Formats: sequence, C-alpha cells, structure tokens
Amino acid sequence: MTRILGIDPGSRKTGYGLIDVQRGKAAYVASGVIRIPDGPLPERLKLIFDAVSQIAEQHAPGQMAIENVFMAKSAGSALKLGQARGAAIVAAVNADLLVSEYEARKVKQAVVGNGAADKLQVQHMVKTLLNLPASPQEDAADALAVALCHMHTSQTLLQTAGGGGARGRFRRGRLSIR
Amino acid sequence: MTRILGIDPGSRKTGYGLIDVQRGKAAYVASGVIRIPDGPLPERLKLIFDAVSQIAEQHAPGQMAIENVFMAKSAGSALKLGQARGAAIVAAVNADLLVSEYEARKVKQAVVGNGAADKLQVQHMVKTLLNLPASPQEDAADALAVALCHMHTSQTLLQTAGGGGARGRFRRGRLSIR
Repeated sequence: MTRILGIDPGSRKTGYGLIDVQRGKAAYVASGVIRIPDGPLPERLKLIFDAVSQIAEQHAPGQMAIENVFMAKSAGSALKLGQARGAAIVAAVNADLLVSEYEARKVKQAVVGNGAADKLQVQHMVKTLLNLPASPQEDAADALAVALCHMHTSQTLLQTAGGGGARGRFRRGRLSIR
Repeated sequence: MTRILGIDPGSRKTGYGLIDVQRGKAAYVASGVIRIPDGPLPERLKLIFDAVSQIAEQHAPGQMAIENVFMAKSAGSALKLGQARGAAIVAAVNADLLVSEYEARKVKQAVVGNGAADKLQVQHMVKTLLNLPASPQEDAADALAVALCHMHTSQTLLQTAGGGGARGRFRRGRLSIR
C-alpha cells in the first residue's frame, strides 16, 4: 500500500488530500484546506510549513504530488505562490517524502479526461473516483486530483500495486471506475 | 550584542552574510554563497533550507533580514525566486529567527545613500563599512548589505545597542563610518 499526499498550493489557501493506493485502486484517507490568515509573510509561510509537516507526521504518506501552476496573473502573484509552494515542498522533503510535480493540465487530463476541464468537473470526478458522499471543497478536490494523477502516472505504483491488471483501469488516458 | 543574518535569495545562488551589532557598530562575522546545482526542484529547495538551517545553528543569529525583490523578468522567474525565498524564510522561522523584509531600493539607500546604486557601489560600501580586506562576492555583499540595512532600520537595535549616540551614525539617511 502506498499513501500519497496531494497538495494544491496557494498563498491564501493550500488544499491537501491523502489517498491510499493498493492493487491499483485508490481509497480516500483525508483532505482539507489550510487557511492562511493575513499577517507577516514569515508567519504565513511557517503556518504552511507546520501544517504540511503535521499532516506528514499524522498520516505518514510516502510520497507527495504537487500542482505546478504557471497561470499567475503577475510577477507579484507568482512570487507569492512560489513562496507558499516552496514552504510546502520543503516541509515534504524535510519529512522524507518523495515529491513529484504535475502541470495543472495533466492533472485534469488524468482525472477528467480533458486537460481544459473546469473546477466543477474536477470536483465531480474526484467525488466519483473516491466514492465520496459529497464533493470535497474546491482546493481539497484539486489536491486529491493531483494525488490521483500521481497514482495514474507513476509506473512504479501501478506495477507494484496492480500488475498488468492495472492497465485496464487507465484506458483512454484517464482513470476509469470499476 | 545582536547577530544579524542577511539573505539575498535566488534560485541558482543564495547569498548570506552575518554581522554583529554592538553599541551601534557593525562587525563582520561571516559570509558566503549557497550554490544550487541543476536538479529536481525539491532537492534544490531542500539544499537552501538545509544550508540556512545549518548557518542558523552554527552562528546562532537572533534575527534575519531578507531582500524583497520585485524585478522579476517574468511570472516564471518570479515563481522560482519565490520558491527559493520561501525555503530560506521557512528555515529561519523554524530556527526561531525574527525575519524582516527590505525592498532592494531601501537596502541601497541605507548602505550607499542612493536607492539606485549599482552592484559595485554596494560591494565597495559593504567592504568599507565592515573594514574588510577585499570586496565580498556579489551575492554575499548583497546579503551583508541587507543585514546592515536591518541594523540601520531597526529602532530596537539602535536603542538597545547605541542609545542616543547611534543617531549620529545614521545621518543623511545612510550609515556613516566613524
């Protein structure tokens, strides 16, 4: 069994989501949103670092997958996003997690089957793929989606978990439900 | 005595410099450049985090000052800079340092007396103000400059260190040498 932590980084809200992968199947573990209140930058980054460190300690994932965003409106917002992303990544490597990055387009392609899918479609597919009773919050859904994308992409996970049988589960370039 | 760690963050090279402030006077402690080789982003950020953590442990500064850069050429380079900056700041707050940010313009104004000073002028003034035998490397000089700017700006440091006498040392908006 491999536990994957997905992170959707942001300077105001950072989403997280954990899934367990066993025999090519994903099971929901936990998810949520780290809310970062206004205040001095060092405190805000510390909050992200501490929260991700705590999640890593509490849930003991082996790997982390994080969205790689290049849609920043301005250099200023890219700097802010980079700082939040840096704090989350450093917390993960500090907790000995293997970190993988995925383009937002690739995450949507893996989960919805369409790289240009909207947020609602991602939320819906995450709910369906993980058999959740309700759609997770937007940022938590994005974090679970990047974790699912990592499961989909990582050949190691597929081979050790599902063997040849896992192939069928990823037909047509996206996760299928069985 | 207060020891200040100055950081000039960058995704390829991060400069650092330490000064001691006593009775309104600055003394050089150490400086250098953390070189970040090409490689996966998580490893690069971990290298910055570990290096800053190690410097904090080895030299035990009480405070950190870091340059706030907004001259990024593109959103992509701002994201990279932000990540490096985030890793350095998180290492500092994790080591219980008080972190202050200064605009590049303000650093140059404090050290050279001209907010538009060039790199060579900064290197020269850092060398002069700290009585160094030679100019420090560019990134190390920028890091020492932001530490000097913090000393200059921090009212607490001036009051506890130099009392009223410190005023004279900061006439005309920049550090003067006595």
